[in-house]
Amino acid sequence: MYDLLLGQPFMSGTGLEASRAQALVAAMRQVELALAAEQEVHGLVPEGTADALQMHLGDGVFDMQALAEETVKGGNAAIPFVKQAKAALPDDLKRHFHKGATSQDIVDSALMLLLKPRLERCLSLLAQARLAGCTLMEAHRGTAMVGRTLMQQALPITFGAKVANWLWVLHLAECRLDDVTSSSLYVQLGGAVGVHSGLDEHGLPLMDGLATRLGLNAPLLPWHTNRQPILAIAGALDAVAAGAEKIALDVALMCQTEVGELSEPAEAGVGESSSMPHKRNPVACARIRAAARQIHGNAGIIANAAAQPLERGLGEWHAEWAPLVDSVLLLEGTLETLAALLSGLEVHGEVMQRNLAVTGGAIMAEPAARVLVPALGSDTAKRIAREASETARAQGRPYADVLLEHPEVAGKVDAPTLREAVRPELYIGSSQAQVERALKVLS
Amino acid sequence: MYDLLLGQPFMSGTGLEASRAQALVAAMRQVELALAAEQEVHGLVPEGTADALQMHLGDGVFDMQALAEETVKGGNAAIPFVKQAKAALPDDLKRHFHKGATSQDIVDSALMLLLKPRLERCLSLLAQARLAGCTLMEAHRGTAMVGRTLMQQALPITFGAKVANWLWVLHLAECRLDDVTSSSLYVQLGGAVGVHSGLDEHGLPLMDGLATRLGLNAPLLPWHTNRQPILAIAGALDAVAAGAEKIALDVALMCQTEVGELSEPAEAGVGESSSMPHKRNPVACARIRAAARQIHGNAGIIANAAAQPLERGLGEWHAEWAPLVDSVLLLEGTLETLAALLSGLEVHGEVMQRNLAVTGGAIMAEPAARVLVPALGSDTAKRIAREASETARAQGRPYADVLLEHPEVAGKVDAPTLREAVRPELYIGSSQAQVERALKVLS
Amino acid sequence: MYDLLLGQPFMSGTGLEASRAQALVAAMRQVELALAAEQEVHGLVPEGTADALQMHLGDGVFDMQALAEETVKGGNAAIPFVKQAKAALPDDLKRHFHKGATSQDIVDSALMLLLKPRLERCLSLLAQARLAGCTLMEAHRGTAMVGRTLMQQALPITFGAKVANWLWVLHLAECRLDDVTSSSLYVQLGGAVGVHSGLDEHGLPLMDGLATRLGLNAPLLPWHTNRQPILAIAGALDAVAAGAEKIALDVALMCQTEVGELSEPAEAGVGESSSMPHKRNPVACARIRAAARQIHGNAGIIANAAAQPLERGLGEWHAEWAPLVDSVLLLEGTLETLAALLSGLEVHGEVMQRNLAVTGGAIMAEPAARVLVPALGSDTAKRIAREASETARAQGRPYADVLLEHPEVAGKVDAPTLREAVRPELYIGSSQAQVERALKVLS
Amino acid sequence: MYDLLLGQPFMSGTGLEASRAQALVAAMRQVELALAAEQEVHGLVPEGTADALQMHLGDGVFDMQALAEETVKGGNAAIPFVKQAKAALPDDLKRHFHKGATSQDIVDSALMLLLKPRLERCLSLLAQARLAGCTLMEAHRGTAMVGRTLMQQALPITFGAKVANWLWVLHLAECRLDDVTSSSLYVQLGGAVGVHSGLDEHGLPLMDGLATRLGLNAPLLPWHTNRQPILAIAGALDAVAAGAEKIALDVALMCQTEVGELSEPAEAGVGESSSMPHKRNPVACARIRAAARQIHGNAGIIANAAAQPLERGLGEWHAEWAPLVDSVLLLEGTLETLAALLSGLEVHGEVMQRNLAVTGGAIMAEPAARVLVPALGSDTAKRIAREASETARAQGRPYADVLLEHPEVAGKVDAPTLREAVRPELYIGSSQAQVERALKVLS
Repeated sequence: MYDLLLGQPFMSGTGLEASRAQALVAAMRQVELALAAEQEVHGLVPEGTADALQMHLGDGVFDMQALAEETVKGGNAAIPFVKQAKAALPDDLKRHFHKGATSQDIVDSALMLLLKPRLERCLSLLAQARLAGCTLMEAHRGTAMVGRTLMQQALPITFGAKVANWLWVLHLAECRLDDVTSSSLYVQLGGAVGVHSGLDEHGLPLMDGLATRLGLNAPLLPWHTNRQPILAIAGALDAVAAGAEKIALDVALMCQTEVGELSEPAEAGVGESSSMPHKRNPVACARIRAAARQIHGNAGIIANAAAQPLERGLGEWHAEWAPLVDSVLLLEGTLETLAALLSGLEVHGEVMQRNLAVTGGAIMAEPAARVLVPALGSDTAKRIAREASETARAQGRPYADVLLEHPEVAGKVDAPTLREAVRPELYIGSSQAQVERALKVLS
Repeated sequence: MYDLLLGQPFMSGTGLEASRAQALVAAMRQVELALAAEQEVHGLVPEGTADALQMHLGDGVFDMQALAEETVKGGNAAIPFVKQAKAALPDDLKRHFHKGATSQDIVDSALMLLLKPRLERCLSLLAQARLAGCTLMEAHRGTAMVGRTLMQQALPITFGAKVANWLWVLHLAECRLDDVTSSSLYVQLGGAVGVHSGLDEHGLPLMDGLATRLGLNAPLLPWHTNRQPILAIAGALDAVAAGAEKIALDVALMCQTEVGELSEPAEAGVGESSSMPHKRNPVACARIRAAARQIHGNAGIIANAAAQPLERGLGEWHAEWAPLVDSVLLLEGTLETLAALLSGLEVHGEVMQRNLAVTGGAIMAEPAARVLVPALGSDTAKRIAREASETARAQGRPYADVLLEHPEVAGKVDAPTLREAVRPELYIGSSQAQVERALKVLS
Repeated sequence: MYDLLLGQPFMSGTGLEASRAQALVAAMRQVELALAAEQEVHGLVPEGTADALQMHLGDGVFDMQALAEETVKGGNAAIPFVKQAKAALPDDLKRHFHKGATSQDIVDSALMLLLKPRLERCLSLLAQARLAGCTLMEAHRGTAMVGRTLMQQALPITFGAKVANWLWVLHLAECRLDDVTSSSLYVQLGGAVGVHSGLDEHGLPLMDGLATRLGLNAPLLPWHTNRQPILAIAGALDAVAAGAEKIALDVALMCQTEVGELSEPAEAGVGESSSMPHKRNPVACARIRAAARQIHGNAGIIANAAAQPLERGLGEWHAEWAPLVDSVLLLEGTLETLAALLSGLEVHGEVMQRNLAVTGGAIMAEPAARVLVPALGSDTAKRIAREASETARAQGRPYADVLLEHPEVAGKVDAPTLREAVRPELYIGSSQAQVERALKVLS
Repeated sequence: MYDLLLGQPFMSGTGLEASRAQALVAAMRQVELALAAEQEVHGLVPEGTADALQMHLGDGVFDMQALAEETVKGGNAAIPFVKQAKAALPDDLKRHFHKGATSQDIVDSALMLLLKPRLERCLSLLAQARLAGCTLMEAHRGTAMVGRTLMQQALPITFGAKVANWLWVLHLAECRLDDVTSSSLYVQLGGAVGVHSGLDEHGLPLMDGLATRLGLNAPLLPWHTNRQPILAIAGALDAVAAGAEKIALDVALMCQTEVGELSEPAEAGVGESSSMPHKRNPVACARIRAAARQIHGNAGIIANAAAQPLERGLGEWHAEWAPLVDSVLLLEGTLETLAALLSGLEVHGEVMQRNLAVTGGAIMAEPAARVLVPALGSDTAKRIAREASETARAQGRPYADVLLEHPEVAGKVDAPTLREAVRPELYIGSSQAQVERALKVLS
């Protein structure tokens, strides 16, 4: 609740039903039961152990308040979890529980189990966003608008080409997220110092089997202080966040009152201002940008904690949990918002058209000059193109009219040719080809 | 609960009673009521307005679940808070509620109200840590131990001198935290665009009066997109975290099995390993280091969100909340841990003494050579000092004995002088003077 | 040279004449000579030592290429510097050179000597920027413009009030920079392990005396692994950068073609585009924003290196140099740019006026409704205020005219009163009072 | 030079011969010439243009000092570069130079050309490091040492298993670096607003052809404000840095005087201390750790600059250059150091053996208890295992002897079995299997 008010209002709430603490406990139990089941296969515990454990470790076993308090003391949640679980087991089962495992085996594996459906949902939301983007891109492949560099009007593009670029951003990020989701969610199992002490030759096969059983990836080796997998996940989350942030930045700039080319989807209660009824705030963009900045910072925390000493981190491991969990939930919330934003985005083509004219034709001075050069020479052509643009802006008249009436121009160039040359919607370069290319790859 | 298991196990839990969401709502109500009360003074609302508002805005008024959901839509908690509050007010009171205020006025002011007691508790914990440190420092002002550079044994210091250095670290950080606590917790009041629209000449005095009424600092101007105060707070939190982190790093290194000069306070259930009964893990150090890394990252998020556009952030403001609140609670947890660590730290003076000997005297080669130089010349003196150290280490004998038996030395130097020169506990430089100086300033 | 092309095009070039390597060598020599001079006073070296050293350590002594290569081997520049210096000294002087000092004493002190004039120049540039800002603020205290929240038009402010806010941002940052410049540039002197080994009771007074002699602050204790001073400097640089970045963001947004309220100072060759002659790019803003982002990251590096082990960092210390030096030079370049930007900023008051009208009056709907309420009731008043705004925008006519012609309004309100109420330039709240207040404190 | 003394002493110096500025100019020229050559193929410029350009744009054409100064004014190096180049061209060639290109096309492409050989050298150094690691791993597959968690002695591993883990860390990072090197070094070509204005249908094929011609990857679309490729490169550099940092941390901890299990390679002049002749500082580790921290921070700068507005960054693009170039050179220096470190690492197996005994057997209490359980029951077995360890440590005697002499044990267990059980070198779990597995994949 706190999270949704002040701390993290931009996280997805759908991720971990019930509560996150309960989700973690459930995941740790799942890991321990699968470990016992796999150990049955390897003859390390008696047959039936996993079933017996499952029977004794029901929902009522764990005292969540005590777990929280003891987690602080021991430094991780697995220590009190194992203690509470053992207390609930009959003596003969105790020694078959958590056998050969260390706290980090349980916490890392449980964390991966928690992340997996979240990452999968992120991928599904990305696909939604992509689909919505493709619809926009196709619809507006020819919708001319002004391109802006350093936020100054530059030359025409089409809105479709802009969307194509957004989608390639998302696509590159999606590839990274897809890659880590399918290959970096490793099970953890190494025992106290990562070499399966006491399990000997059973260690590696047990680790591999546990991975399969839990639907996680099998690592080459235990990775207690090899945090490359975590770094890769954090990097992929960061890349997707940066992608969404780029789109949100563009949308927010295009929603500015004076620009007015886009509006966020109208939805009751969204983007209202308590004091100013005329406003429709780009709240989706604000949410996305807020979350992305946090995800960037979280990635930095994880990178600065990635070099962990010897066989177990001394705080570095513990520093990963919050940034990682927060980032994945922030990203899920971000992508929910992004998919909705792209699905309902209002595109004001007529304003795009109008904005192409606000410089009085200055943005078309270059193609205009090209037409004038053969008749007037290069220097004169450029001077006239520039003067006419100033006149057109001052008088609020079409650039072509002003050009054609210019005393040095009149009669010297073909009017239809000149009119064509300064129509922004015809000077859109490869915009449509870019949309075609993007459709082939991204739709 | 989630926080205490996986997300943020190292936060202080004492900070915000009940729940953080409720604490925020209570703080927002406090701001609104104080605003009305101050507006009564300025004749902007009828007398009795604040009392009437208070009567209508009791505990049952706010639907926390709906608040959370609407917060996502509007982008901040004040929007649904004002809406719910107005719904609970009779018509004639509605227009006197939230008068002249904007969401950010309420959220920023409420946030400062929430931070204030937390920062004050951090200062009080720092004072506790300092006191405990002073006791250690005095007790061990003469306890010789080896100083280590690049983690190699170098020359002797005293443990008291080391603690003096820790305390000056904390002192410098404490000064920054004290400074922001007493001068940077500003009330926020500027209305929709920060210029007290509609309140005109009442704006600035109202802002000043509200600050006094809430026990917050009065800013020069509203600071909606002037995030220097937030940046200063985040920087001070970061400095204190770095200070605690330095101490935790030293303690953890000195707790290493092979070094063994310190132990964390023994406490039931703390530092246990589920699989290895012989271990006493430096869990306090791990907690402090984990929290510090997160606080560093949070400071980075805040710095990267500090430049906010025009009259209101577009996500940058929203990005501040979680890092700021998390950091202050993480720091409070860190300082609880640090104060306990310094209060109960076990100092093994005899191990410090033993470690001074592990190089066989090599760390004392420099002072030994000084005594030999007059009789043997510089080059020979250095050679012998080095050779004797190797012999002493190999044979496990006292360096002085080996030196005095050396054929080139025997009979050429005063034995008592040489014995004195290579006693590490006499070669501690300004260690004790540093303790004296630190005691004067820091105790 | 590299720096100015690709690496760091936004650093100040004025800082370190000749080359930075030479500046560092000169500063290290200054530290060593001052150390010897101070040791003369304390009777630790013979009188005349400093002069003799100075005579032998002339410009030609140091082989810069060899220094660079050996720096990599030893890990810091002082090691080969001392070696080269000793090689240039007669035997009897050798032992009086670098006496009682460690590499870090020399490098830290030299670094502080290098930083001092740079920070002072930053402060002087900040004062210039403030002065230029005050001129703008006074000139435009009544220049009405629209305030924007989440980049949407909201309600009027004045440009003077905006500048007042900018200046308070800078002022708060300037206070931090001034504070560290006057109190955190500490001399370093502690010897091998920070306790003045061999210097004993002379250690602390020598350290204090050296500080005075070099014009640096005297620390309470040596601070080899107490990096709070470095953290404070980095934090202050970061705060100033964030302040400049805020102004640059506002200016860039107001320079947008469609907004057009400001232009960067026109200067030959600045802001040109090679391909688009009509553009004037806000290059100063781009430079400031680029530098600020780097300074934020550098501050993060320093924070993550602030906890240094035992008596000497193992890489953490070495990680500070580049971010610190780069940041101060980036900031100096930033402030040169900012001072020039504020001094020559072109303010287009007529465009500000025009932009106040682009919503057709919607931004004035709130004050309009207030006038209508007594005659029409609250709901009707709000509806009409909104409808009229839509009509005004559609027809491009003044809001007041449309309101007064509205059938439900006509004849029911006092026309002059209504006309006054919807003049944005009269609805500027405390804008002018804010300018007055800011002038008192900041000019 | 500066870089190698104070700023960036840990960068590789081999990267960019001559000077970096000249390397950039050469790369920009290469891009422009290839563009012209490719445009010849597409019939956009006359045949022979590229050759003619090459002839006129010789080494003497560019005034590096003026380039540096103008770079500041225009905000990037391509603007003055194009201006200087055009000034050197005859009139008829001028219009065929830089045709259809924008500054960012040239700078981004040139940057990728500069990065490519650096990344390739990093990969080659990684291969060297891997090879050296494999030799270590094989040689020490059975060298028992103690595993340490939270820096406390825990249970035995082998040094070979530790190296196997290091190598998997490097391998995962290497895969990322290899991936970006082969697929993310994109040519940039989009013209003023990224849609090949004026080139129309030639745009995309020209971009593809230019990529081939320069040996760079062809992007799907121009990527002026799609910074995912830069983010991926920065992330890969960061991952490799974190990998090297992990190894350096382990080595530094194992080099501690009191641990003494490893020494850095002995090399004249490396790791010396000016004041303490007995020290051999782990300078390679310090250098690696210093560089890694900077690379982490640089990655954060790039992530926070990744969302760039509309069709061109307003400072965000410019913020990438220094962190990216610095990081790649820092990483190259890091990997040179790492390869040398692993190649020459001194492994002290006898010290590893000795350290296995320092707890008097406490680390073997768990396997000891297992042997005792059948005869003594679980509780008694654990108590005796613990007591005997304390006795063994206090008396400095072998754990097995003490156990066997214990009154409750004597005669109740098989002595050879117990002696075997507490031999650390036999309790190494899957250590050797891990080495086998690693050899298969990583050598």
